Amino acid sequence: MFVILVYDTAAERNPKVLKTCRKYLHWTQRSVFHGELTAAQYRALTHTLNSVIDPSYDSIVTYTARSPDMIDRATLGATLGGPGEIL
Amino acid sequence: MFVILVYDTAAERNPKVLKTCRKYLHWTQRSVFHGELTAAQYRALTHTLNSVIDPSYDSIVTYTARSPDMIDRATLGATLGGPGEIL
Repeated sequence: MFVILVYDTAAERNPKVLKTCRKYLHWTQRSVFHGELTAAQYRALTHTLNSVIDPSYDSIVTYTARSPDMIDRATLGATLGGPGEIL
Repeated sequence: MFVILVYDTAAERNPKVLKTCRKYLHWTQRSVFHGELTAAQYRALTHTLNSVIDPSYDSIVTYTARSPDMIDRATLGATLGGPGEIL
């Protein structure tokens, strides 16, 4: 499955959120990651994130598609993600 | 088509970027918008954004799918978007 993840979390929890996201996904820009995961990896990612965030304050949204083929990505302006980031 | 838009733009250009995004899309959280657009609306949105940003510094990434049915959205923790935001 293809996953786009955006987070809006308190500064003191950002390092743990970032570390978890980097383990599974590619950084797109600012508070956004994306990547291809198995269903099991996606469950592990969300399970870990749920144990890290304060659900009354932090918010993480995932958009998922069954396949990366279903998603087109376009960049206006500068490309911030590194070379491994191309879909 | 379904559009997820994330922006990373200089503070002085954020108001114009936000105004343009709000005209076409729903706010998800922080620097993220999403919504359903026609191809013509998507072209108009990207055309306006290209005229607003400094392409050597600012970056806007769009992820698009042919239909909202192809995308599942999940929220961990707090829901930040307002009621009109549900897919």
